[in-house]
Order: sequence, then structure tokens, then C-alpha cells
Amino acid sequence: MPRGRFITLEGIEGAGKSTVIAQLGARLAARGLSVRTTREPGGTPLAERLRALVLERGDEQLAPEAEMLLMFAARRVHVDNLIRPALERGEWVLCDRYTDATRAYQGGGRGLPAALIESLAQLTHADVNPDVTLLLDVPVGLGMRRAAARRGAPDRFEAESTAFFERVRARYLDIARSEPARVARIDASQPLEKVVADALEAIEAIEARTR
Amino acid sequence: MPRGRFITLEGIEGAGKSTVIAQLGARLAARGLSVRTTREPGGTPLAERLRALVLERGDEQLAPEAEMLLMFAARRVHVDNLIRPALERGEWVLCDRYTDATRAYQGGGRGLPAALIESLAQLTHADVNPDVTLLLDVPVGLGMRRAAARRGAPDRFEAESTAFFERVRARYLDIARSEPARVARIDASQPLEKVVADALEAIEAIEARTR
Repeated sequence: MPRGRFITLEGIEGAGKSTVIAQLGARLAARGLSVRTTREPGGTPLAERLRALVLERGDEQLAPEAEMLLMFAARRVHVDNLIRPALERGEWVLCDRYTDATRAYQGGGRGLPAALIESLAQLTHADVNPDVTLLLDVPVGLGMRRAAARRGAPDRFEAESTAFFERVRARYLDIARSEPARVARIDASQPLEKVVADALEAIEAIEARTR
Repeated sequence: MPRGRFITLEGIEGAGKSTVIAQLGARLAARGLSVRTTREPGGTPLAERLRALVLERGDEQLAPEAEMLLMFAARRVHVDNLIRPALERGEWVLCDRYTDATRAYQGGGRGLPAALIESLAQLTHADVNPDVTLLLDVPVGLGMRRAAARRGAPDRFEAESTAFFERVRARYLDIARSEPARVARIDASQPLEKVVADALEAIEAIEARTR
């Protein structure tokens, strides 16, 4: 049984990740692949309870450090109970956000040290890292308008400022520049069909290089 | 306003921490001190939700690393929202478990590296450490008999083996030996009145030395 592929989608709010992941999943499944789509934080019942807790805007202070610890705890639960077993069964796992989101949001957005995030990533999932990461990149203004149009009350991240999302986007772009063999930047301000086509092409290009 | 005191109680299941903490709180309050008793994991509504999640015996695998991350996330929430503000108001905070429990349970019991636990402790509460820690020490057999007598279905820790609790107790005793200026070992197999008297005496002795 060949190991499956682990593909992550990243981007700021309003980049279109959930729409694109659904389309990509359908296209890959149509090629006969066994595809599992999931998301972070969350992806399993236990990790989804952590998601609810970390996204809600409650009365209590949730320090950036606590937020980061919860993200990695949820990630470990997700990796152990869903992602690793699926990859070992030969499935392709398409995941909406993974550790690049922690690098961008808790690192770029909240200012936590990159070295700390890398050491927790190593502790949490040393053996489970994305084969391909698609960065759905949109200007912050467009992302925020799209996100505002579709949602109800904003969650703890959606309620952040434009300056916060500019820092998040800048960190995402840094990651794409520094890891071109893994991360493909996709222009997500294009029409959906073109975004999906570019995403498939990026997966194929990275597959071809690593085969 | 003088800063309050931060007193933690530690010990394995069945050591009698919750009974002793209630008695100690009453005795200290009777001296005119403003006393706040609390517990870990938990102590605030958000941290109690994390407590429920980490103690329950669910269907999903919860790796030692994820357990530790959740403990520290809950601790940071507790420190920021209850412990630090109470200490700054001049209150005495009596807390049932704190980071020594992580050292003993996740370090001694589950085998996670001590250096990792210390670095997360530093990240989580560099400025909030106990003035006094009371280790309520009982032989594992006695603790397990007491715990079994009072409880319903065992939680994720209570369901552990005797060998696990022997490792936890040994680590607690190591901590008491290596930090005698902070940690007092109390023989908790004695009658309750004697345990409470020894605990008060230990608090006074450490106070006298640090004053």
C-alpha cells in the first residue's frame, strides 16, 4: 500500500479555502484516489471541541501562548486520530490549515517567536508534514470583504484588524518564498475554476519533482 | 497592598488534597487573610472545559504530548484570569495542583522529558510560581484505596496502574528533596487534624524563612 499524500491549504480569511478544497477533493477522487478532506483546528470530535473553545470570543483572556498550545494540542489529536492513519491507509488527506497557519497567525499575527513554534511543531508532528501546501493568496482587503459577506458574528480571528491580517499574509508569503519545493502560491483573486486548475497544476508539479 | 501568597497542594489520587485545602482555607481565613481556593486543571470556566476534556476517557487517543499541552494551556488561562489578579489584589491563593503535577504525572508518570516541561512552564507562567508547595504524601496503595472508595467511574488518570502512581509519587518526592525551601513533604497517612496542623506549620516555617 503506497503512503497517501498530505496536502494542506492555507490563506487568510476569505481566501476561498473551503470552496477550493471541496472542488479539489472531487477532482482527485474522480481520478480514482481515495480522498479525505478535513480542517484545522478540528477534524475529529475531540479536536473540534478544542476548535470551538479557541475560536469563540468569550469573557476570559486567552493569551497568544495559550492559543498556540491549544492549536498544537488539537493538531496532535488530529494527527494521531485521523491524518496519520489515513495516510497509512494510502489516502490523500486534504487539510484546510495546518502548522503554516500557526506560523502565520500566532507567529506573524501575534508575534510569538518562530523558534518556539518550530520546536512545538517538532514535538507535535515530527513525522507528519505536508507533501504539498497550497497558499491561496488574496489581498487582505478582498479577503476581508469576502469573509464579511458570508459570515455571522465574527470569531476571535475574524474580529482581528487589517494590520493583523497584513502580518499574517506577509508571513505566509515568506513561507512560500523560503520553501518553494513544498509551498505553491496560488492567486486566489482569480475566478474559482482558474484557482482550482492552478491548484491541481501545482500538486502535479510538486508530485513530478518528488517522484 | 502586599502581594498575596501562592500556595499549591500536590499529591497522588487519594492523598486528601481537597479535604485539606478546604480546612487550610478556613484556618487562614480565620486569621483575617483573604483566601481563594482553586484547582487544576481548571479554576475558571474556560479552564474547567479543558479539564473535562483532558480527564474524560473518550474514544480518541490523547498522546502524552497533547495532554501536556492542554495542561499548560489550561494553566495559562487560570494564571491570567484568576491566579495573578488574585495575588495582585493581596489574596492568598490555595491551589489544588499546579506545575509540579505536570512534572510528576506527565514527566514521571508518562515519561516526557523534564527539560521540555520546564521550558513550557517558563513560557506559561514565568512570573507566577508557588511560594509554598505542600506535598501530601501517601503510599500508593493507601491513596488508591481511598480514591476507589469515594469515586464513581475513574477518570483518565484514576484509571492508571499502580506502577504509574509509583512513578508519579517518586517524582513528587524527588521534587521535595531538590527544593526544600519551597516544597514541604507532609505525611498524609496521618489523621486529618494532624495533616492540617503539619501543613499550617510548614507554611509558617517557609514564611518565616522568606520574610
